Amino acid sequence: MSYSAGKIQDYLNDAASSKPAPGGGSISAMAAALACSMSEMAANFTVGKKKFAGVEGQVKECLQQLEVSRRKLLALLDADVEAYGAVGGAYAMPKDTDEQKAAREKAIQDALRSAMKVPMNIMRQCGVVSHCAAELVRIANPNLITDVGVSAILSEAACAAARLNVEVNLKFITDPAVGAEVRPEMDELTETTRRCRDEVARAVAEHLSK
Amino acid sequence: MSYSAGKIQDYLNDAASSKPAPGGGSISAMAAALACSMSEMAANFTVGKKKFAGVEGQVKECLQQLEVSRRKLLALLDADVEAYGAVGGAYAMPKDTDEQKAAREKAIQDALRSAMKVPMNIMRQCGVVSHCAAELVRIANPNLITDVGVSAILSEAACAAARLNVEVNLKFITDPAVGAEVRPEMDELTETTRRCRDEVARAVAEHLSK
Repeated sequence: MSYSAGKIQDYLNDAASSKPAPGGGSISAMAAALACSMSEMAANFTVGKKKFAGVEGQVKECLQQLEVSRRKLLALLDADVEAYGAVGGAYAMPKDTDEQKAAREKAIQDALRSAMKVPMNIMRQCGVVSHCAAELVRIANPNLITDVGVSAILSEAACAAARLNVEVNLKFITDPAVGAEVRPEMDELTETTRRCRDEVARAVAEHLSK
Repeated sequence: MSYSAGKIQDYLNDAASSKPAPGGGSISAMAAALACSMSEMAANFTVGKKKFAGVEGQVKECLQQLEVSRRKLLALLDADVEAYGAVGGAYAMPKDTDEQKAAREKAIQDALRSAMKVPMNIMRQCGVVSHCAAELVRIANPNLITDVGVSAILSEAACAAARLNVEVNLKFITDPAVGAEVRPEMDELTETTRRCRDEVARAVAEHLSK
């Protein structure tokens, strides 16, 4: 099922309902896509304008990265729903015999590892969006500076929200090596998106106080 | 035009494009609606379950507030696009004669004051969502605790993002009394949503570390 190709109200209704998905991972991807769109808008109002010809190359590069990110995020919005379904399917496997129990436990662990990758990739895309926002706040059309601010705020939040969805999978993954492997990268992405939010907020506040 | 009744991809494409709207205010409303849906989901997975019968009344009350909030937020998502159009229309008025200049200036100020009310109302709804998340994290079905976490994170971010859209209108509103009137309420809502995000984050972290 493709929620990303569907209607806003249907997506929100299903998210709010007592259906198991879309849940927090998918919603984080949507929040990150919103963040992405606001940096894209600022870039699109900069590219092709004489006044900003000096930064055209940099802004175009951001724009290309953001367009790719948004496509990936919309795919992740749907991928999270699927991955969540696979985890539910594994938990629903029979567990009457020892053989069944072992097969079920293996399927659960495999499904959790796959499911964890989705919010992990959402966090990575938030890293891209936050970097672009921090660059655009310095060089893009300042008429759009509060939109870049919205982008940096929502990207930090989407990253933090996605992280909770990695962590809740890790809680049930029995191999401690999996968490040990991803936590340094998560810490770095958390730190990056926070720093970019703070940097952008300062630049926006300075602009608004002029 | 009703974006809220339309498709996710159309909304994001228009937001990302060099169309003037949807902009940061509308996107903040959408982020707040995402936040709202995650608290609703946690409430919906709690109501009607024997195990949580003791908190049924409180959870139902949250759920009712959240359902109202989400409807209001989707209306604000569209209202922001309209209000932004009205500001653009006022700026486009003729300014050849002194009379025209005066009429245009009055129309701009009126449009800005109306436009400012939209993100102000988004902030108020974020206050509602954050309060509910802070309550639900204590009493709702703990299987959904990371979704409540996502709710509190996104509500804080949507509030901060909406605030930038109040501030950018205030920058062009010539009567300083307007800003003086709304800033204390904005400070309070900023503080409330931050405190709730922190409280919820602590509860989620404690649950995940068990």
